[in-house]
Order: sequence, then C-alpha cells, then structure tokens
Amino acid sequence: MSPIATQQVNSSHGTELSKNPHVLAKASSPDTEKLVINTIRCLGADLCQQYKGGHPGTVMGAAAIATALWKYSMRYNPANPDWVNRDRFVLSAGHACLLQYILLHLSGYSTWTLDQIKKYHAPTMDGIAAGHPEIEFPGVELTTGLLGQGIANAVGLAIANKNMAATYNKDGFPVIDNKVWCFTGDGCLQEGIGQEAISMAGHWGLDNLILVYDNNSVTVDGSIDICFTDDTSAKLKSMGWHVLEVDDGSNDLAAIVEAFDKAKTFTGKPTFINIKTVIGIGSANQGSGKVHGAALGEDDVKNVKSALGFNPEEKFVVPQSVYDYFSETKSRGQKDENEWNQLVAKYQEAYPKESAELHRRLKGELIEGWEGKLPPKESLPKDPKATRQSSGIFLKSIIPEDNSFLVGSADLCESTFVNWDNMVEFQNPKSGYGDYSGRQVRYGIREHAMVAAANGVAAWHKGAFVPIMSSYFIFWLYAAPSLRMAALMKLRFIAIATHDSIGVGEDGPTHQPIAFPTFLRALPNLNYVRPADAEEVAGAWILALKDEDHPSFFSLTRQPVPLLEGTDRNKVQYGAYIVHGDANEIPDLTLIATGSEVGRAIDTAKLLKDYKVRVVSMPHMGRFDKQSVEYRRSTIPSGKSLVVAIEPYCSFGWAKYAHAGAHMTGFGHSAPYSVLFEHFGFGPKNLASKISAWAETRKTSQGWDLPGVGEFEELLLNQNPAH
Amino acid sequence: MSPIATQQVNSSHGTELSKNPHVLAKASSPDTEKLVINTIRCLGADLCQQYKGGHPGTVMGAAAIATALWKYSMRYNPANPDWVNRDRFVLSAGHACLLQYILLHLSGYSTWTLDQIKKYHAPTMDGIAAGHPEIEFPGVELTTGLLGQGIANAVGLAIANKNMAATYNKDGFPVIDNKVWCFTGDGCLQEGIGQEAISMAGHWGLDNLILVYDNNSVTVDGSIDICFTDDTSAKLKSMGWHVLEVDDGSNDLAAIVEAFDKAKTFTGKPTFINIKTVIGIGSANQGSGKVHGAALGEDDVKNVKSALGFNPEEKFVVPQSVYDYFSETKSRGQKDENEWNQLVAKYQEAYPKESAELHRRLKGELIEGWEGKLPPKESLPKDPKATRQSSGIFLKSIIPEDNSFLVGSADLCESTFVNWDNMVEFQNPKSGYGDYSGRQVRYGIREHAMVAAANGVAAWHKGAFVPIMSSYFIFWLYAAPSLRMAALMKLRFIAIATHDSIGVGEDGPTHQPIAFPTFLRALPNLNYVRPADAEEVAGAWILALKDEDHPSFFSLTRQPVPLLEGTDRNKVQYGAYIVHGDANEIPDLTLIATGSEVGRAIDTAKLLKDYKVRVVSMPHMGRFDKQSVEYRRSTIPSGKSLVVAIEPYCSFGWAKYAHAGAHMTGFGHSAPYSVLFEHFGFGPKNLASKISAWAETRKTSQGWDLPGVGEFEELLLNQNPAH
Repeated sequence: MSPIATQQVNSSHGTELSKNPHVLAKASSPDTEKLVINTIRCLGADLCQQYKGGHPGTVMGAAAIATALWKYSMRYNPANPDWVNRDRFVLSAGHACLLQYILLHLSGYSTWTLDQIKKYHAPTMDGIAAGHPEIEFPGVELTTGLLGQGIANAVGLAIANKNMAATYNKDGFPVIDNKVWCFTGDGCLQEGIGQEAISMAGHWGLDNLILVYDNNSVTVDGSIDICFTDDTSAKLKSMGWHVLEVDDGSNDLAAIVEAFDKAKTFTGKPTFINIKTVIGIGSANQGSGKVHGAALGEDDVKNVKSALGFNPEEKFVVPQSVYDYFSETKSRGQKDENEWNQLVAKYQEAYPKESAELHRRLKGELIEGWEGKLPPKESLPKDPKATRQSSGIFLKSIIPEDNSFLVGSADLCESTFVNWDNMVEFQNPKSGYGDYSGRQVRYGIREHAMVAAANGVAAWHKGAFVPIMSSYFIFWLYAAPSLRMAALMKLRFIAIATHDSIGVGEDGPTHQPIAFPTFLRALPNLNYVRPADAEEVAGAWILALKDEDHPSFFSLTRQPVPLLEGTDRNKVQYGAYIVHGDANEIPDLTLIATGSEVGRAIDTAKLLKDYKVRVVSMPHMGRFDKQSVEYRRSTIPSGKSLVVAIEPYCSFGWAKYAHAGAHMTGFGHSAPYSVLFEHFGFGPKNLASKISAWAETRKTSQGWDLPGVGEFEELLLNQNPAH
Repeated sequence: MSPIATQQVNSSHGTELSKNPHVLAKASSPDTEKLVINTIRCLGADLCQQYKGGHPGTVMGAAAIATALWKYSMRYNPANPDWVNRDRFVLSAGHACLLQYILLHLSGYSTWTLDQIKKYHAPTMDGIAAGHPEIEFPGVELTTGLLGQGIANAVGLAIANKNMAATYNKDGFPVIDNKVWCFTGDGCLQEGIGQEAISMAGHWGLDNLILVYDNNSVTVDGSIDICFTDDTSAKLKSMGWHVLEVDDGSNDLAAIVEAFDKAKTFTGKPTFINIKTVIGIGSANQGSGKVHGAALGEDDVKNVKSALGFNPEEKFVVPQSVYDYFSETKSRGQKDENEWNQLVAKYQEAYPKESAELHRRLKGELIEGWEGKLPPKESLPKDPKATRQSSGIFLKSIIPEDNSFLVGSADLCESTFVNWDNMVEFQNPKSGYGDYSGRQVRYGIREHAMVAAANGVAAWHKGAFVPIMSSYFIFWLYAAPSLRMAALMKLRFIAIATHDSIGVGEDGPTHQPIAFPTFLRALPNLNYVRPADAEEVAGAWILALKDEDHPSFFSLTRQPVPLLEGTDRNKVQYGAYIVHGDANEIPDLTLIATGSEVGRAIDTAKLLKDYKVRVVSMPHMGRFDKQSVEYRRSTIPSGKSLVVAIEPYCSFGWAKYAHAGAHMTGFGHSAPYSVLFEHFGFGPKNLASKISAWAETRKTSQGWDLPGVGEFEELLLNQNPAH
C-alpha cells in the first residue's frame, strides 16, 4: 500500500500557511492539497508512460515541494514571465523538468497548455516540453540538465540580484528585492561545480538564495549510499549556509512552506533546505533507482492512480478544483507586478539618474558612445605589450563608468589585467573587503562555477549585465561545460583567457593549451578571438560587445607582442584580413596566422625575399567563414597561392584554409617562451627555411602545384617534444 | 624580525620522534633540524631568484612539512624510485615543485643533483626541474599543476593500493601495504575536482590516504578570506574524514611528525591534516600573496638569509650536516625494499598462483590470449545493437577473469554496459555493498574526479591496472582536464562514452555533443575511436588494449545500429578503411563516415545509383593520419574522387579529408533520435539527394571538378536548429 494512502497531511497546516505573506486569502483544505499533489503525481506518471520515457520519480516524490513553491512561496506573474522583480527558479536537477512544466501549467502560464506538456518525449520537433528545461521557453530561467550547473547559475542570479539591489535600491525603494530558488537533487551536490558554487555563495552570504534539496536518497544506479555518504547538512553549514531540514517532504506541505518562509526572512546567509522525499512515491518501485529515469509501466501507473484515489483508466486528469486551487496565482502575480510598477514610477521621480541608468540596462544597452572611449590605435603604446595587458587598457577605458559590467577572476585578477583603479569588490559587507555594489568579483579558484555563475548573471535579464571573467587559458578547460552552456543559451559574456599557447613558458606543458582552442572554435555560437596585438584586442572588445547574443572568448598572450602596422580593429570584425602584403597582387605564398604569431609571420614573410608573400591575420575563424565567397577567396587565394597556417596549437582544423601548416605536434615543455618558440620551430628563420623548402617542392614550370584536399603538410614534424 | 629567529622548536621532539617506526636510531638535534629547514628555505629563495621566477613562498613556508615527510614519515627507496611498495607522494599544489625537488635531492635520489635543480626556470630545454612536477622524472608519481587534480590522483593511488592489498595480501604477507601522501594548498580544496575526490575517499574510508593541507591562508590574489571562508576541517569531517590540526606547521617539526604518525596508524577513514603555515616565512612579505608566484628580489633574499643565520652573499648553500641529516634515508629505504623482496619471495612459495598473477601484472601484461577471448564477428548478434551494448559484450568476455581491469562508472553503469555477472563492488567493507577487492567502482556523479582518480590508478605501477570508466559522452566534458592530463602523462585507460551525437534523442541539446569530439581528436596521444558497429567495437577494444602508452576514448551509440558486412576489427587498427564499394576502381564519390553514420552512408551509397560510390569507415582519425601516404590516398582518393564526410557533429576538422560534408551546423534538439536524424538531414534519402545535387555542380566534360583547399562545402546548411 502506498504511504500516501495512509499518511495524513498535518491538519493544522491551514493555520500555519496563513503566516505566509503570499498565502491566499482563502486557505485551502487539506483534502484539496492532497488532491493537488496527487494530481501532479498522476500527471507525471501518465506523461512519462505515454511515450515510455522520461523521469517520473522526482515529479512524484517532489510534488509537494513544487506545490509549496508555486502556490505559496515564489513571487511571479504568470502573465509576464519576464517581470524583472520576479523570483527566479532554477531547476538544477533538469531531468525533473516535467515537474516544472506541470506547475507552470497549473499556475497559469498560458504557453504551458496541457497539450504542450503532452508533447514531452513526443516524436515531433515543435514541442516546448523538452527533455530538459530550455531557456527559450516562458518560466524557464536557464537551460539546465548537466548536473551541478543550475546551482552555480542560481548563485549567479543571486549575485545579479544583490548587485542590482545594492546599486539601485534606496530607502523606501526596494526596486530589486527578489529571491532565487534552486531545486537540486543528489547529483548536483556530488558534482564539483555544485560544491564550488555552494562555497562561493556561503562566502558571500547570499541570503537571497534558497537551495531546495530534494533528498530522495536515490540515484540512477540505486541507493545513494553506494557512492555518496557525506553529511550534507553539516557540509553546507561548514560552508557558511543556514540549514533547515524537513522530514516528510513528499507529503508535509505545511512543513515545507514553513521552511520556505524561514528561508525567505533569514538574513546574512544563504539557506539550504534538506527535504527528505520518497522518489516515485506511490509506485510499486518507490524509493528505488527504477523510477528515476524510466516510465513506470502501464500496470504500475494504474496502481499509482488507484492508490491515490484516481480512476486508473483515465489519463492526464486535472480536476477543476486543482485549477481552482492555483487560480489566484495569476491575480496575485499581476497585483505584485502592478505594485512594483508604481514603486518604479515613484523611484523615477525621486531618483531620476539612477532610474535612467536602471532603465537603460533593462533595455540591454551599454553606456552611450562606449566604442569611442576605446583608445584609438595612434594612442596605443608603441612598445611591445602582452595582449593581456592591452586588454586591460580597453577594459579600464569603459568598465569603470558602466555598471553593466560585472568583472571577475578565478584568483588571477592581476595577471589577467581585469583590475581598475578605485574598484569596489563584490563582497559580503561584513567581510570588510567590499559590498554588494562592487563589480570586481573574486570567484576564488573555482573556474567552473565562475562561468556557470556568469551564465546566471547574464540570464538575470538579457543585456542588463555583461559578465567578464578571467583566468589563464588552460584553466578555462575546467569550465568547458559552462562555456558550452553559454553558447547553447546564447548568453553574452567575455571570457578573458590569458597565457595562451606555449608562450606560457616555464610553467610547462600542463599550462600550455595545444588542443583546447579547437573545441572553442568548433563550438557553435562562441566567438573565439585570438588578437594579434593591442589594435586587434580593441577589435575583439568591439566584436564581443556588439554581439549581444553570443559569448566571446579572448585568447591573450602572457608575453609581449609588437603593435603591428597593418592591424585594424574594424577588420577584426571580418574574422580575417590582409595584414601585410599587397592586396592587389596574387601572392606566391599566403601565410595565415593568429595572435602572437601574426608578427612572427610578418617577420617570416620579410625573410622570404624570393617570393611575393601575403600575411593574413585570422583572429576569428568562425566570423571569417560567414563572409562572402568573394571576400574569403580574395583574402586567402588558396586556388592561386600556396597557403601556410602558422599557430603554436595543433593543426586540427587548419586544412580547411591552408595547404600546409606550422603547428605543435605534441604537448609543450617547461622553459622560457623564447626558448620554446625556437625549439619547436616557430623562429622566423626556421619558418622561412621550412616554408621555402616546402614551396620549392610545389614549384612547376606552370606555376604552383597547389596541394589538394587530403594533402595537408605538417611543416614542423620532428619537434622532438618531451611529451 | 622573522619568527624563525625567535621561535624555538619544541626541545622534547627528539623523544617524540622516536615513537615513529621509521625514525633513525640517531635522533637529530633541534639545532640540526632548524638548520635543515632553513637550508630548504634559503635554497627556495635562491632558486627562484636566480632566473627571477617560480614559487618560493610554499617552499619556505612548508619546509618543515617536507622535512617531516622525507626524513621521518614516508617509506621509499631513493635508489629505486619505482619500488612497488613505496609510499606514494603527490604534490597537488604542483607549483610548489621546488620543495619536492629539493627534498628529492637531500634524501638521495641520484638524478636530482643540485645542478639539475638549479635548472629550475633556466633557459634550456634539457632540465628535469620543470615548472611543475612531471611524471617522467624519478620520485614524481604524476604530473600535477592543474589545481585539484593531484587530490583525485592520490585517491586513485589509494584505490589501487587498497585493491592490490585486498586481492593479494594474505595472513602474514602484507605484500602491498603502502600509504599515499598528498600535499595540497588552498587552491586544490576550492576546485570542484578536489571536493569530488575528497567526498569519494571519505565514502570509501580510504585509511591509506593522508591529505596534508599546507594552510597558509594566502593565494595569488592575496589573503584567502577574500574568496574562501569554508571551515575546512569541519567540511572534511562531514565528508567522512579523520581530521588532525597542527598550529605552527612552519616550525613545529615534532608536532607535524606526531600528526603524521597518528594518520599512518588510524584506521577506517582517510586523514586530513590541517597544518597552519606562514607562506614565504622569513621574507619581508611573508604571509602575503607577493611571495606566492614571484621571486623575492635580491635584497629580500639577502634579508631572509641573514635572519635564518646564513651568509647573505652565498647562494645554493647546503651544509654538510644537512646532507648528513638525510644520509640514512638511503640505507633505510634499501633495507625496507630488501625486507619486502624477502617477503615477496616467501609469498611466491606460499601462494604461487597469486604471486604469478601479481608478477604478471607488475610486468604490465594482461591475461594471456585475451584477444582470442573476444567473440569473433560471426558469433556477434545479427540484430541491430547499440554500440554501447556491443561494448558490454566484449567487456564481459575479458574483464571478469583479469584482475588488471578496474571498471567503474559515474552513476550510469547499467546504461554504459560496464556491469558483469557476479561482479564485486569496490566498497568499504563496512558498507555491506562490497569490499576493496571489488573491481566495479561506483565513482558517483563525479566525472572529473573519476578520470583523475583513474589517472592515479593507471600511474600506480605502469600496466598493473587498466582503468575503465564510463559515463554519457557529454558528461565527459566535465572531465576534459583529466583526459588531457592522461594524454600528457601517456597513461592507458579506456573511457566508455555512451549516448554519442544527436542519437541521444529526447534528452535534448544539453546532452548532445556537437563540438566536444573535435577536442578529443585534436588532443595529442588520445585514441578517440568511434566504431560503426559491434565488429568495430571489437577493433576499438583491441586498439586500446594494445596501446600501452595512451588513453583511449570510445564514442558509442545509445541507439541500435546494424552489424555491417564490410566492417573488420583488424582494419580498425588503420584508423580508416574501405567498408563498402570496390577497392580496385576509382569511385565517383567517396563517403567517409564514422560510428552510427557508417551504416547510414552505406544506405546512402546504395541510393546513389548513378555513381560509383565508395564508403570509408574512419573510426580513428589520428591513427589514419599515421598510415603511409599510399594507404591514405588509396583509401580516400581525394585527388580523383569527390569526397563527402558524414557525421552528426560539427564539420570542424573534416576539410582535411573531404570536399564537402553533412554535419551539424548548430546544437541539437529534444526529440526521439529517429526524428532528429531526419530533421537535421541525415536520412539516407536526403543525404543522397543533397550529395547528388552537389556532385552535379562539380561535373565537367573532363570529369570531376574537385574543390580545392578553401572550398569545403557544408551540405546541411539551413537545418533550422532551435539553438
């Protein structure tokens, strides 16, 4: 017999609930609430059974938690899912999306019809009830599904809230005062990114963040204690969290709402609510891994319904009283938003300057004329500078005066040049290091959570923030899943990745990226930019800030590079352009290079006196691919000229443009960068010698014998790498 | 004034130390020990100052910890760094490598001469004192430097130790009973991977693991409390660790040794020793971020030396009494190894079967005739099977009887088919789920630490273990840094990555890898294999198990694929081969495909009736690149035939072989796989139509107008992806 059938919801809960500021005037009866929860459970079972797939267990086990959230605890307006001062809800356990979809339907989001939800796992391309929640659809704040990301996204949303509040709220004008709710299972708490994010949030004392733990003690492979025996509540406490516990989270709605109330009013720390539930409650396999990621089976679905007092022969049943139960969420939400609009109108009168800035940011606009504030090429330092330093120059020219920029680093802010004078740190005011209005975020040595948090910041309200994060290039590999999520969600941020290529030098092969850039170039929607000098760094900043729908990643040098004559920030926007040589004559040789190798390629070209040589700088491969055929062929005439790519990464991907390449064929080495570039063959003399020797092999009496597809030549084999 | 000058080491420590089983007969005087510690500090200051780079702070602050380890607490034989039953030491804070190098020198590793150590940061290619410790060099167990990896590596070493001990030790024959020591700073404890690894180790109760925390409260950007305020000791306790604390870890050698002694004898839990130290102790900037990653400066180095009683004008000074202090480590180590050799000899007599197996594994050999145990093609199931299922068939044919294989999963062992009948789980015997002899490892939802731990298992003794880990393909992105480290270290393992491509289906774009495979293909030393069917899966296993020096990564399908007529496990070893069509005639069209698309390409070929079509299966790009020019040109005649690549990943990299490609141009979608393949254009009818339409545009009266480099054509543009 199912425990639901026997277990009574605490009959005093009606009274308890009335303490909640958002409670409805008309308290609901325990019977109605039981019906609501059971309706959600039966819907979950039906929807998974229909196409025999999906995750029913959490829908059933956590139905009461979701009811508490959408009925009593969260502030939102179903008629305007984008209302700025709504509470944010992040489903970190993204596979439980059906639970969210059902509540979005019940609470009155018009897009989320029952028919739409029935398309969960349906064989069509046009559904919105995707297998994991997707940011494109109303009521979904971010796309989740890769475990742990959501917790860090929620931390980012909470940072954004806190920063907005600290920047714009005034006495009597709490224009931003919403909460962030994050729903997590066991998995997100095991993942490293989840733990990084939790440690961050505890450090900052983000008391606007509430982490709701659906503690069902079951995972895909079975009982959680086969792999996870942390004392989670104690662990969260050790990381600076306020911890609450609920014993019967599958049924005790009143206890859940009470915990949520406490969490909402608690100050100084984020709150973790450890709620024990029974996964797949009502199923014959309740409490086991079998109900996690598979439909229950026809018979079991019928049993569930019988046990819960539903007709086993009927499907997708939502009694009218269940709709009635949620009916006031719409009017309540509209009322909340109306009151907020009035507040904002008064704020506009009282604080016109702040209000204007707030509204500019909510429109997604940067400060007017920002592009003109970037120092022009003629005023850039003439002596060689590392591109990471040059990036700092541009950052300082626009960041300090525009509150849109939330800048941070994974413990390397001086090396990555994201500091500025008189900056305020984003910190818990009690720490003595800054306050929540600060825009320099010290993410700690937590690259993965840094980027996922930035995704949350960027998703808080499109365009209101431009997150900028920084670390050494190779450390970004720790954050690759979150970079990918940013690209998938089309969120704008700027990733400052310094110490690129073997230019890292003495730190050695662990720190020298060789293959990682291929992933970044291949990733749809990401702007991977490797600027050649300070002027191209300006181009990278312009490209990133004008592209509102995509994240950008700057690959910057540790070592100094000269300011080159031919570079042009405007031409960076084409992805590649002629930086040296006569554009009007067909060259014998076209050298394509990126970043610090552009200068090296020009030096090489000057040594190749017997040839007409053109050098193309290609800071952004993907952008070049989008140009017209005419532009591409006129820039890189691979049908008329021998083309050689030069880049101290692996050659993977370069055969698309070049007949031959000078690349790394293995991992790097620990030695000063100047030694490494010579050793691995990137000295201009060696390059010129290798290129001319190869070019001679392609010379015929009829001109160049251009290698075809399948004949790409590695010019720097035998590098004798240690690794 | 430096605290060292005033602070006395506890004079009773000589007595304390004698409790240590490894303590020397002749106890050293406090003065000598102070001299030893100060010598290490001055060496650290000198070695960084010499080439003005490196990390002096930890060398100076943790000199006493290192002295305790190498002088008193660790078991090792400097004359044989590879002695199997040595304690393992992992420097997770890899940037502090100079400390390890100095101790390797002082304790008598002949390779580590002072002259070698002086090459730290020197402008040469021939040094062994790399900027981070590298596995190639004696006394270094694994290459570290990416923070957090080392903790997980150490957990892997501890797993290996425990598993060997449980498998081979008998009453009176503790043939494997060593400890694993891991040295960590703040950074590794902030990184998610470190936290995952700590949670794992606590779960398993790995009491052979000792995590030594150099708690200097300083990081690159300054005081640790700007970003990290966890109560670390409480946190480790909550994750099942035994916790010890030492207050004055920069000076109180006796207290450190006492803590190490306790840790070595404590049973049931791993031990965390929280040791407070002062970074850069003795420097004018001690206790600050300034001494973390930069040389101190000439003046400060002199001041340090004066304060520590050294001549400020002398460099690289090691008093003879310091060498004398460590002199007995060599004889002690040799004695320990000799005794162990005697034990092993007796074990051979008493347990000849176990001994033979142990020795086979220590020679790095798998069970004889393993290849013959893989079911031949004719006995493979004829009905379509997912390649993940086929992989399970081969796994079951060789894994159960060879203890070399340590298999595991990040909570998806049933989905990835790495289970077998009657398997024993690697578990804490107290858990009731298994014991340490078990070879099915439940890593939990901790992909990153799983792979880094596997690196530790593989590095325990080359060839003694073949770690096999499994998860969904996209989740491996979480572990990308550890995959890269395996490739850099040339460690063999097999990564089972199931649910590849858009074939994942309903789980949607978060779960569908599009760009990640490019990284895996570009990564030096990694075998990325995408087999077409069960027969090619056999080829993948053979390739992986014969390649002792490299990790392998299998890209496997969720969905069923047919067993193809032309596939051949032996030809998989060439990376690519003709799987359909006449090898003796020049085709009009060559279709290259991988994995589940090989069958699809053959179906497409059959529809292209107006052309002579060849299909090439390319399970391993990198291996194909290593074949002779003749083989490559005869397999893919791109100079004579139109070549089209087909793969539902992005096209990045394919222009090297193909004139055109059918690929994903954006992220995937949530729908059943069959719907997705049709929608995105991978249905054979659509492929045939697109390919023939394109081919017609390249037809001339003189034959095919083969596109040149720079003219790669995407055949599946306009996929209308949602993302």
